[in-house]
Amino acid sequence: MQFELTAEYIDELKLAIESRDDVHLTETLGELHAADIAEIFNQLDFDEVKYLYGLLEEEPAADVLLELSEDNREQLLASLSTKEIAEQIDNMDSDDAADVINELPENIQDEVLSQIEDIEQASDIADLLNYEEGTAGSLMAKELVSVYAHESVNACIDEIRKQTDNVAVMYAVYVVDDKDRLIGMLSLKKLLISHPSAFVEEIYDSEIISVKTSTSTEEVADIMEKYDLVVLPVVDSLGRLVGRITIDDIVDVIREEAEKDMQRMSGISDDVDSSDKLWRSSRARIPWLLVGMCGGIIGSRIIGSYEGQIQIHPEMAFFIPLIGAMGGNVGVQSSAIIVQGLANNSLKGEKLAPKLLKELGVGLINGLICSGLILGYNLIISDSFQLAATVSIALITVIMFASFLGTFVPLTLHRFKINPALATGPFVTTLNDILGISIYFLVGRLLYSSF
Amino acid sequence: MQFELTAEYIDELKLAIESRDDVHLTETLGELHAADIAEIFNQLDFDEVKYLYGLLEEEPAADVLLELSEDNREQLLASLSTKEIAEQIDNMDSDDAADVINELPENIQDEVLSQIEDIEQASDIADLLNYEEGTAGSLMAKELVSVYAHESVNACIDEIRKQTDNVAVMYAVYVVDDKDRLIGMLSLKKLLISHPSAFVEEIYDSEIISVKTSTSTEEVADIMEKYDLVVLPVVDSLGRLVGRITIDDIVDVIREEAEKDMQRMSGISDDVDSSDKLWRSSRARIPWLLVGMCGGIIGSRIIGSYEGQIQIHPEMAFFIPLIGAMGGNVGVQSSAIIVQGLANNSLKGEKLAPKLLKELGVGLINGLICSGLILGYNLIISDSFQLAATVSIALITVIMFASFLGTFVPLTLHRFKINPALATGPFVTTLNDILGISIYFLVGRLLYSSF
Repeated sequence: MQFELTAEYIDELKLAIESRDDVHLTETLGELHAADIAEIFNQLDFDEVKYLYGLLEEEPAADVLLELSEDNREQLLASLSTKEIAEQIDNMDSDDAADVINELPENIQDEVLSQIEDIEQASDIADLLNYEEGTAGSLMAKELVSVYAHESVNACIDEIRKQTDNVAVMYAVYVVDDKDRLIGMLSLKKLLISHPSAFVEEIYDSEIISVKTSTSTEEVADIMEKYDLVVLPVVDSLGRLVGRITIDDIVDVIREEAEKDMQRMSGISDDVDSSDKLWRSSRARIPWLLVGMCGGIIGSRIIGSYEGQIQIHPEMAFFIPLIGAMGGNVGVQSSAIIVQGLANNSLKGEKLAPKLLKELGVGLINGLICSGLILGYNLIISDSFQLAATVSIALITVIMFASFLGTFVPLTLHRFKINPALATGPFVTTLNDILGISIYFLVGRLLYSSF
Repeated sequence: MQFELTAEYIDELKLAIESRDDVHLTETLGELHAADIAEIFNQLDFDEVKYLYGLLEEEPAADVLLELSEDNREQLLASLSTKEIAEQIDNMDSDDAADVINELPENIQDEVLSQIEDIEQASDIADLLNYEEGTAGSLMAKELVSVYAHESVNACIDEIRKQTDNVAVMYAVYVVDDKDRLIGMLSLKKLLISHPSAFVEEIYDSEIISVKTSTSTEEVADIMEKYDLVVLPVVDSLGRLVGRITIDDIVDVIREEAEKDMQRMSGISDDVDSSDKLWRSSRARIPWLLVGMCGGIIGSRIIGSYEGQIQIHPEMAFFIPLIGAMGGNVGVQSSAIIVQGLANNSLKGEKLAPKLLKELGVGLINGLICSGLILGYNLIISDSFQLAATVSIALITVIMFASFLGTFVPLTLHRFKINPALATGPFVTTLNDILGISIYFLVGRLLYSSF
């Protein structure tokens, strides 16, 4: 049923391109979905992509363009004239069209816009370009079907017939008042099963959830997820219906948010993916490495202040990595749970104190288990009671502190409207490293001097 | 427009419940969406939830039940008779109903099923319960609208009127042949704008993507995302239409997958969330802590074998945390990028070698920067050339190794069909820790004995 991309398939295609077997190629492309063609294109050299692209019909060509990876799309667009780009854009939904125009070099954006034949489409796109990125306005499309409340079902169906030319998939029919303000919706089902002479105002559903053009995309995603919506109408500040957002765009937002959080937690500061250039990849990672290095240097100074003790008791050095690693691990575990709870809103409305108490409880249980085990190990393996006691006492203290910090830091960052994932991973790990070493040597000095 | 839950709102509600102000409460609840009511319920004590739940009408009550947190739902269901549960389930879509029944204790599942009044609903649910979790069958709902290809548009609309009683939202009309095999679909738009006497076979769209009941939910999510689908039909092994999956269920799958990956990377082995019980939280985290502890013990033995050297050169101990932390950080960065690329399929079809080379390239750049900086620091701050050289040489080696492991381990796990996120985080960190210390002391011994 579904298309499966194989290495042989690609090889065969490359051969066909080389021998310019247009008949076979056109037939092959004709059988494929745009998303599959894009997947194939992402595996080919640009010359091959360009050649195949030329064989596509107008409408699939526009769809393929949208599905391509950003790099490939950029290259392909750069090889087209503004006239050709305008033709492609004419075949797209307004939201996709605006996205593509936004990706173009600024100096040709206006030129492309002015060459779009469908004036309405061009003005819709120009409109959409005004909205700030990250808002509902930047995500919405202008294509929608709306009817006036005072119309009859029959008139309404006629109106829909007229309007649907521009609408690829019709999710819902929106109902507006005389001033174009959104007042409700009419399901297609209702329309199909209602009497032709009934009036829209008698049958429409006035309970409708909408967002403003200025609502953030994250909030849009939350609302659509919470209320299980497939499409969400967007209104302007006067309540007039200006567009709609569909769930497929939101799926992308959710996916991207999750990926960004994961990257931030892993200490990658910029939004990169595995296909990015070497230098860009390096640059995105170096800031947190430098933070980690500063942490390491601070750690070295702390340990340095115990130089004399290490000379007498070199075994103290053995467990430095264990203490550091455990603090790091526990901190990351705690903060991952908190970051996640904040991201999926399951922590909404809850108070800080019980969360902290619970994480400390988890820390206490796991700390007792771990330090108990390491105490047993050290008592068997080593003849230094001081060392065994130092490691275990330091370990449980470090785990408790790490649980506390792993909970407290992301929650506090969140409170100050800083993305909690941003500083959670490497920041907490570094903090725990430094703290762990301090505690370890402090406990060691106390115990070694007391017994 | 949208409901905003505040602490004052909850307090006011609690007061109204205490004074048994049913008129006010019923009115309040009547104005709210089920998802909002569930959000409120999650903030109340169980007695209050139980009381408010009793005030809800039948249909909203079923919706609220679905939106509640798992714990609350479990408690609420436990307080209802099987007869009452059956009534609730009768008001749900078959997929939700099956999920709820699945959550019930096994001994009452059959009893509830037998008390559902709508025989068709009961048999649909019983059917759905047979599918294995994690497959399309377990995710699909039975409610759908289908027509035969040989019918006329008019007959078709009559048929739809009949069928829509069971269908809350109608996404598409599926077209089947005489043997109930799925052969295509008919958009509602097409139906609305076609002539009543036209036949379905003349106007339906035969290009339709479907999955089998046995397809995995991850694959279903990939397909719906790739092809931007809102609803996906499910067929049995004979190609007969048996159900459909809607995008809102997939949004949950995507969200859960992302969360699980993040947890696995953070060293949390079980699927937990911030509301879970203390003991369950501890148990989910302890396995990777023990792995980390084993790593720490191995590290202590490695350092132990250099005891004599530390006694003579205690400054060697200063940079143990720095080397360990940097190896860990770099490894996590590399593996996060790979895990993400694997999760969103952007690595599909790409070869291992170029990925490795690129990560090594990034490692080399960042390694040179970091070890250059630390060399400068050590030359200024310390009078030991050996120490400065040891730290810098070890650091760049460790970073290169960490880049390699951070790429190689997840890709290899993926190749052996093991979830790469599972062992990526703590596993790679621990491995890098041990490796880092070995390299550091090895380099140290070589340099100190040579100069």
